[in-house]
Amino acid sequence: MTPVGIVGFSGYSGAELVSILSRHPLVEPVLLEHRETEDRARPLNYQGPRRMPYSVGLPLVFLATPPEVSIDLAPGLLEAGAKVIDLSGAFRLGTAENYRRWYQSEHPQPELLSKAAYGLPEFYRDTIPGKQLISNPGCYPTAANLALRPLVEAGVINLQCGIVCDAKSGVSGAGRKPSLKTSFVEVTENFSAYSVLEHRHVPEILRISGLEERQLSFTAQLLPIERGILETIYFRAKGDLNDQKIISIYLDRYVNDPFLRIYPAGTLPDLRGVARTNFCDIGVHIDEATGRAVVVAAIDNLRKGAAGMAIQNMNLALGFPETTGLL
Amino acid sequence: MTPVGIVGFSGYSGAELVSILSRHPLVEPVLLEHRETEDRARPLNYQGPRRMPYSVGLPLVFLATPPEVSIDLAPGLLEAGAKVIDLSGAFRLGTAENYRRWYQSEHPQPELLSKAAYGLPEFYRDTIPGKQLISNPGCYPTAANLALRPLVEAGVINLQCGIVCDAKSGVSGAGRKPSLKTSFVEVTENFSAYSVLEHRHVPEILRISGLEERQLSFTAQLLPIERGILETIYFRAKGDLNDQKIISIYLDRYVNDPFLRIYPAGTLPDLRGVARTNFCDIGVHIDEATGRAVVVAAIDNLRKGAAGMAIQNMNLALGFPETTGLL
Amino acid sequence: MTPVGIVGFSGYSGAELVSILSRHPLVEPVLLEHRETEDRARPLNYQGPRRMPYSVGLPLVFLATPPEVSIDLAPGLLEAGAKVIDLSGAFRLGTAENYRRWYQSEHPQPELLSKAAYGLPEFYRDTIPGKQLISNPGCYPTAANLALRPLVEAGVINLQCGIVCDAKSGVSGAGRKPSLKTSFVEVTENFSAYSVLEHRHVPEILRISGLEERQLSFTAQLLPIERGILETIYFRAKGDLNDQKIISIYLDRYVNDPFLRIYPAGTLPDLRGVARTNFCDIGVHIDEATGRAVVVAAIDNLRKGAAGMAIQNMNLALGFPETTGLL
Amino acid sequence: MTPVGIVGFSGYSGAELVSILSRHPLVEPVLLEHRETEDRARPLNYQGPRRMPYSVGLPLVFLATPPEVSIDLAPGLLEAGAKVIDLSGAFRLGTAENYRRWYQSEHPQPELLSKAAYGLPEFYRDTIPGKQLISNPGCYPTAANLALRPLVEAGVINLQCGIVCDAKSGVSGAGRKPSLKTSFVEVTENFSAYSVLEHRHVPEILRISGLEERQLSFTAQLLPIERGILETIYFRAKGDLNDQKIISIYLDRYVNDPFLRIYPAGTLPDLRGVARTNFCDIGVHIDEATGRAVVVAAIDNLRKGAAGMAIQNMNLALGFPETTGLL
Repeated sequence: MTPVGIVGFSGYSGAELVSILSRHPLVEPVLLEHRETEDRARPLNYQGPRRMPYSVGLPLVFLATPPEVSIDLAPGLLEAGAKVIDLSGAFRLGTAENYRRWYQSEHPQPELLSKAAYGLPEFYRDTIPGKQLISNPGCYPTAANLALRPLVEAGVINLQCGIVCDAKSGVSGAGRKPSLKTSFVEVTENFSAYSVLEHRHVPEILRISGLEERQLSFTAQLLPIERGILETIYFRAKGDLNDQKIISIYLDRYVNDPFLRIYPAGTLPDLRGVARTNFCDIGVHIDEATGRAVVVAAIDNLRKGAAGMAIQNMNLALGFPETTGLL
Repeated sequence: MTPVGIVGFSGYSGAELVSILSRHPLVEPVLLEHRETEDRARPLNYQGPRRMPYSVGLPLVFLATPPEVSIDLAPGLLEAGAKVIDLSGAFRLGTAENYRRWYQSEHPQPELLSKAAYGLPEFYRDTIPGKQLISNPGCYPTAANLALRPLVEAGVINLQCGIVCDAKSGVSGAGRKPSLKTSFVEVTENFSAYSVLEHRHVPEILRISGLEERQLSFTAQLLPIERGILETIYFRAKGDLNDQKIISIYLDRYVNDPFLRIYPAGTLPDLRGVARTNFCDIGVHIDEATGRAVVVAAIDNLRKGAAGMAIQNMNLALGFPETTGLL
Repeated sequence: MTPVGIVGFSGYSGAELVSILSRHPLVEPVLLEHRETEDRARPLNYQGPRRMPYSVGLPLVFLATPPEVSIDLAPGLLEAGAKVIDLSGAFRLGTAENYRRWYQSEHPQPELLSKAAYGLPEFYRDTIPGKQLISNPGCYPTAANLALRPLVEAGVINLQCGIVCDAKSGVSGAGRKPSLKTSFVEVTENFSAYSVLEHRHVPEILRISGLEERQLSFTAQLLPIERGILETIYFRAKGDLNDQKIISIYLDRYVNDPFLRIYPAGTLPDLRGVARTNFCDIGVHIDEATGRAVVVAAIDNLRKGAAGMAIQNMNLALGFPETTGLL
Repeated sequence: MTPVGIVGFSGYSGAELVSILSRHPLVEPVLLEHRETEDRARPLNYQGPRRMPYSVGLPLVFLATPPEVSIDLAPGLLEAGAKVIDLSGAFRLGTAENYRRWYQSEHPQPELLSKAAYGLPEFYRDTIPGKQLISNPGCYPTAANLALRPLVEAGVINLQCGIVCDAKSGVSGAGRKPSLKTSFVEVTENFSAYSVLEHRHVPEILRISGLEERQLSFTAQLLPIERGILETIYFRAKGDLNDQKIISIYLDRYVNDPFLRIYPAGTLPDLRGVARTNFCDIGVHIDEATGRAVVVAAIDNLRKGAAGMAIQNMNLALGFPETTGLL
């Protein structure tokens, strides 16, 4: 059992890591205490995972921390020889310019940006094992890129008219820190858009899908549920297209990807189907006569959108079968 | 106090009618018993609204019934001289052809289609009082048409690229009849699209907004909440446009409409703000550089989307001030 | 229209006051700005209630504020001649000793404790109009006292075996200040007891119902809903008792109380039935053979448990019919 | 991999069985098709568990079916030599008289009642492996008996005054068949008691805990959540008792029970802590001066209250370590 560390284990992504890793047959989770927030009560006669003060000695460490903490901790861990899988946005944008534009500040460790693998195995499976630092993708970009990139590559989208990605997320995506916007009474029996066209995840979608900013209208919205992201994606077809052709593009592209599930024509995925799984479910519908097309992509934001994906990356990084502990 | 009848008072729209009308200062609601479904328990020492078996003698009757029941009851009521406000889809589509295409059957009373006023006061305020039969709009079309028609009329939308209307509704929109799709465990912590491009409300949006089918991509989705419709509408601007210009179009168009509320640039409405009100709230955001535009429209599907609108129509039909009982 | 002030209008009870008072035919709500928290976005073309900086000149003021703010503001308002209706726990406990025991501190204005009317009209209707300061009851005690006091007075409870009051409340009862315990992800799909035997509302139940502490086991629990309190009360009958006899005790006691609704044998109230109303609904069931009895009492914690009750008290204080604006 | 059959796999308990068994290292779940209800859409490129028409050839079969179906199928399975774990109420009550009283009908296979093991391993671990038919306990009785029986056996409850068990359950406990009572709009933002003193689970609590009917007041209530049962249990202490003494009783009794977790004094379990686990969490609080005591017990009704417990029983029946597949 390889010991793997988790920093930020009391947050939602961190707790999800602990929960999945506790059942993983090849690693042992170790909770690294570092500015942790309020814990839940713990039973007297129940032994949870091992805990210890933060240190850099483990072979692999997950950073389920805010970007500024990740930027602070990553260099020391890398220097000590650890593999680092970072779940924050700290190392996702590829270039210092991109970071400056979307985060409105200078990246404090710009040299790490180019050293980080982008941890989306479905597209970068081969480069992940060779890198010491893996940047786990954002939750919204994961669903968007898995749904969009095969279609962009296949050239079936009329890019002139642009693409709409109407995204909805459960509240755990906003983290565990209390705020009025995520308090129960404000969220329940409500629904709201909270970031229209300007979400920080947009550059990550553009970077991976190969789209330009003017081609994509992206809106993030808050669902009154704990977990799940569903993205409804609209485009106009270039050339003749029907449900079956789009489905074939996905089936072909993802023939070796165990976590991509494609739905038959006439059916669509929902959030219940992916809850607490590492799957990304995709369904499509197109009106052949007019070329109006709709793709629905669903993931669990804490699994395929965070902790599950991070463990998929860990499996690749440590040379384990990719699905270990995730089915 | 004018007595007004409600058929279908145990359904969600019907119960909402009763609830609003019980506080209306100029009318008395009368529950007309006609194939009612299961009631809630009633207290011993509390006198609710008057009930009586179904009959045609009242001056105005609301039909909160399925379309086939409305089609069955309307002729008798009209013959008896009653004003009829129908909340179903029976008389909304204007022509028998339209009905045949979207309902896949012949309309049994096609002559009533042309006699019915379309009960959207913001656009047909003047014709409503003169008609005996008022067809209350569908919930999705109400939000979509109030958001889209001013912009279509102002000619600021690039129609070449089409419009996306991503609509989300609370579960009460599906009615009170039990079904697996609306049962608690299936809906809670879930979100799903249930009608992509082919919802029966599409022709009603096209008819009123002046759009053609190929120009509109409409998807209906189920929110895990009781009530509320939020529609996120995407288009590309024709010509120079900014937040303030779109806001001015709405403010000008709705200057005499007490139930339309327009939000300042940088803010957006949500469902909490319209819950249990007759308001339609609208907010906008446009990226000036690229012309990508987003409009958010929010209503309570049981109020502005059903019972509230029906009472607004009743006020017009009976010559009362339009907002009576609705603020 | 008498102007009445609301301090704390951005909290949940305060917003509820504003919402009800905006439709009250005899008063005009005035929002008194005093350390208000974050507001919701406000539409451009919609005129809400009047706002002004905090001052003491209005004839009646609601304090929907934390106890320490109420204790701070009340003396100035009273001196200026205003009637004050306080929704906090500041003046509910009757004596300085009681306050010391349950709040573990000295009451800073002990002389006000004896001057305050306890604003439970069903039992103190006559003394409320004569007092300048009215202490609005706590939400849990309101349901408990309305359910228990008639039975205690009728002597039908075997007090030897004690009474259990298992209370469940919606999250709005905890106020609007963000905290981990009331954040969406922690509350949804959860249920928990948060105060067992030692809730600060216990002395208020004892004081009004006439019970002793050893006779009552009270537990407060958090429901994953916005609003509503349901209390399930268990006792053993003294003497022969059946459903009908208990129902009669309530019907007799509350014959002149418009907001108490009693359910027929075999039925029970629920939270949906009282949501957004000023009613307290009560139902009972007893096993005649063994004397095991259960009473269920339901209120909306923001209405009968806070703002609705406060307006009922205002109606009495200003000489209006008691139900004005509340049905 | 031993193949084990599941009848009723489209219901909530059945689907939970499939979900847990799919990750069990020693068995292979086989879906036995027998009057199944509506399925969810299934992806094209995803191989779920094996399905086949109902037959009696497997070594062990779970019946996640209504009692009348279980009574119908069990004899054939037993005759064919299969072990049967029944999740319905068909074989729980021990005697034909008990069944007659609480189900108001004759049991069609009374001889099976005495042959069935009662599948509560914490109290009947030794007898379960020897029986061919195992009756899985009801969800409410599981939490109640695990909380009550150690205290009844220790003699620390004043039985004169009786015990109150105020039970709350998520909606999945009511099964998947659509009904008005479990439809989303009726349940959300609501809470209600649905069975006061007369629930069919009462005799099962009495039988196992050793209490008499007059000693127990049990009420079942519906929480607006998917899953989870929390029972708040009230009693009066016999003799000196404090938190630590009660905690010790539980720790001693359950020292060899891996699924019982006891909370330290001053803390209490909640439903989030047991969701999707096979744990039963217990916490206590007692007022030493007056002997008023409260015990809170929490389980996941679909796990420890149904499918998880059934698999714990399967592990015992097949000679596997008891926790296999359940941690």
